[in-house]
Amino acid sequence: MDDLSVPPHMSPDEFRTYGHQLVDWVADYWTSLPQRRVRPADPPGAVAAKLPAGPPATGDGFASLVDDLDTIIAPGLTHWQHPRFFAYFPANTSGPSVLGDLVAAGLGVQGMLWATGPACTEVETVVLDWLADLLDLPEKFRSRSTGGGVIQDSASSATLVATLAALHRASGGDWRAEGTRRRYTVYTSTEGHSSIEKAARMAGIGDAGLRLIEVDEETLAMRPDRLRERIAADVAAGAVPALVVATVGTTSTTAVDPLPAIAEITREYGIWLHVDAAYAGSAAVCPELRAGQVGLEHADSYCFDPHKWLLTGFDCDAFWVADRAGLIQALSVLPEYLRNAATDSDAVIDYRDWQVPLGRRFRALKLWFVLRWYGAEGLRAHIRSHVALARDFAALVRADQRFEIVAPYPYALVVFRLRGAAPDDADRANAALLERLNADGGVYLSHTRVRGRYALRLAVGSPRTTAADVAAAWDAIRSAADAVAGGSSV
Amino acid sequence: MDDLSVPPHMSPDEFRTYGHQLVDWVADYWTSLPQRRVRPADPPGAVAAKLPAGPPATGDGFASLVDDLDTIIAPGLTHWQHPRFFAYFPANTSGPSVLGDLVAAGLGVQGMLWATGPACTEVETVVLDWLADLLDLPEKFRSRSTGGGVIQDSASSATLVATLAALHRASGGDWRAEGTRRRYTVYTSTEGHSSIEKAARMAGIGDAGLRLIEVDEETLAMRPDRLRERIAADVAAGAVPALVVATVGTTSTTAVDPLPAIAEITREYGIWLHVDAAYAGSAAVCPELRAGQVGLEHADSYCFDPHKWLLTGFDCDAFWVADRAGLIQALSVLPEYLRNAATDSDAVIDYRDWQVPLGRRFRALKLWFVLRWYGAEGLRAHIRSHVALARDFAALVRADQRFEIVAPYPYALVVFRLRGAAPDDADRANAALLERLNADGGVYLSHTRVRGRYALRLAVGSPRTTAADVAAAWDAIRSAADAVAGGSSV
Repeated sequence: MDDLSVPPHMSPDEFRTYGHQLVDWVADYWTSLPQRRVRPADPPGAVAAKLPAGPPATGDGFASLVDDLDTIIAPGLTHWQHPRFFAYFPANTSGPSVLGDLVAAGLGVQGMLWATGPACTEVETVVLDWLADLLDLPEKFRSRSTGGGVIQDSASSATLVATLAALHRASGGDWRAEGTRRRYTVYTSTEGHSSIEKAARMAGIGDAGLRLIEVDEETLAMRPDRLRERIAADVAAGAVPALVVATVGTTSTTAVDPLPAIAEITREYGIWLHVDAAYAGSAAVCPELRAGQVGLEHADSYCFDPHKWLLTGFDCDAFWVADRAGLIQALSVLPEYLRNAATDSDAVIDYRDWQVPLGRRFRALKLWFVLRWYGAEGLRAHIRSHVALARDFAALVRADQRFEIVAPYPYALVVFRLRGAAPDDADRANAALLERLNADGGVYLSHTRVRGRYALRLAVGSPRTTAADVAAAWDAIRSAADAVAGGSSV
Repeated sequence: MDDLSVPPHMSPDEFRTYGHQLVDWVADYWTSLPQRRVRPADPPGAVAAKLPAGPPATGDGFASLVDDLDTIIAPGLTHWQHPRFFAYFPANTSGPSVLGDLVAAGLGVQGMLWATGPACTEVETVVLDWLADLLDLPEKFRSRSTGGGVIQDSASSATLVATLAALHRASGGDWRAEGTRRRYTVYTSTEGHSSIEKAARMAGIGDAGLRLIEVDEETLAMRPDRLRERIAADVAAGAVPALVVATVGTTSTTAVDPLPAIAEITREYGIWLHVDAAYAGSAAVCPELRAGQVGLEHADSYCFDPHKWLLTGFDCDAFWVADRAGLIQALSVLPEYLRNAATDSDAVIDYRDWQVPLGRRFRALKLWFVLRWYGAEGLRAHIRSHVALARDFAALVRADQRFEIVAPYPYALVVFRLRGAAPDDADRANAALLERLNADGGVYLSHTRVRGRYALRLAVGSPRTTAADVAAAWDAIRSAADAVAGGSSV
């Protein structure tokens, strides 16, 4: 009989035994991926139905936990690390990232303040400077200059933080006290990410203050002429333009907004320019893939997601500002219980003032593991291998007259569709193609609409994806297209 | 010579070898904690100075990473898992939590939608229902009712989400489009957490819309009479009261606001009531520690942090709403590239609409590991052991006439100080006492101000803390008090 008055903490020896077992479980899981469906066929509720109605009264044995991982959890997942996961943007991780996260979880530090995690804070500052070097970002984003980098959970949160700092600046500092009582406006293209709309809403600007600027029909990039017109009209109408979000690599098609022309406008009007390179930013580790960031020296903030395409597990968004003082002024709240000598000395960074939440994990550790394990050349090889695979795939699509590629593909996303004379029929055929393809479980792609028309997205993202996987995806797409053309039901 | 065109991915065998090594490293780290200073003595910049100026061109060997963990990272940290860490509120983790996080990192799924992580979503829903059972939360917060639970990164983000949902409701639905152009007001006590002020600011309400309600001099709990007066005055002045945040266990002293009396007011005025039990919520696993949540059935939302006091590593805040439909309406944005059959069917939960960011990790897994490993009785034993240790400590303080306890201690935080006839002198003496105590590195406490006067906080939180650690802390406090009284310099 257990003594129910003593907490049954896991002993160090138990931790070693079970930890080794689960490290092996993860390695086995990765090795097993090619044999798994990319996503399960089960309907909603199938996993929940297999779980008990409540927690156990006394602890379950570890073996039963592992058993449930094998029989309930893993089979119930969409496998983002699968070599044939081509949907959305990738969220790829790697051995070094997982191990860095393991150590961070074990250390269990909470780095809200420098004082509560000196190494947690300083490694983050250093690693973000390293990343700025690696991507050749403007000097002003470095911690030795007026700016600095910080890890956010995601580009969504980075956009929200940029929106708040922009409001602070646009208000001349009144926003902290007065809120968003004035009619502020935010600008992005019609192809900008949904998180920009969400950030404007959360910041109290409201959907009515969001301006979606037309894009160039061919490149799908924001039209600076339209941006200028809209800003001028808003200013004339008494609104206060606070923020322009330009995108390097849109979610729908990886379109690249023209930063130099946009920056000319934001400088003229004194508007905060945030550049969202959530997906494509990783590509800048390769000098030949930096065209999109020309003009970035005029941006006020910038972000990209190492958790998308730089082998660092979710969540890890790298966010830089040019003026850290402005950001801190916007977000700082200092109650007595967080005061300390280091903060008062002004000699340290307290990252709590750079983000939405107060607390923070030691996320820099996994990034540090990744950068050191791969090195600059290793990361370049990784990006180049995916760009090459995407180009190979595009060549296959181009060679089949039934299909067309509908947007430029400067990175590792190819957006394509079945051609069709009648647009609505073609949309239905493409949707049917995707549904058939994904229902099979052999590959997983997602979709979008480009110029209003349904299109398929194939993003090469997993470090496990090989030429054979891309070829297999193409075979599956062609077979599904045959079936759709033949009129067989899904 | 390495082939620089091939990414040097870590092989499964390398991952097993290094993974075992780092599991052992974590176990050794935990075992080593009593021999370490709780926080380092090094000045700002000491860690950064030991790191290279840039990332390596090609990968570093794994041994050098582990070496840097030993010689730079671990010595440069404030050790939150240390048995003599008594500062702030704890952020305790446990073996099962770390192992659940290891598996989550290895799975690397991103559960923004049910479709992108069916098991990720369903385990979260089930585990939050389990937690609601364990804490005896009102029925309306369960997923089988109108509400449901979701994991946020922290109580700060939970408060922000509650603020946004409250604005949506207070505006009659206009807020999404119109923003916070009206004069909305938010209420909490003068002892409410700084994240409430920050949320109001981020939501565009502005610091001017924040009302800090007086507390009872004795209990430090919000005074409902003052709340009612203030709301009535604001309504009379044309403001729109949107949200009241009541606290169960304030950060400064673990004061408990009177929920029944507060709820009577929020119901009368139709104001959203959010209850923040970030720290104290964990205690409700014990039936005898649920007094603070009487009246919770009238709340619109509730949160607590398993990452503070329920053996689950940061970050893991559990947040419940009574009306999930309202929350989703407030936060939903649905671009084409996120549409999918499951979402359109309305048969699933897409947790992206319950939070600030879009993407999300499989955080429910660590919580599931913890609940299953410990079981309900194990968690109760854990909480009870800390409450008992805190009471033992309070008895020691009470027995020493030099000290006084300045607030009730219903959980595991004791707030106390050196007595003093002249208040300013006493403040200086207490600040000097804390500085001396913490400079030594043997223990780590934090401070606050209670009724304007400086006081020390000792929170028992680490699962490694024993009666001997608490006794040692008291010895150190007495010695430091002797030194301060003797006038020796810090």
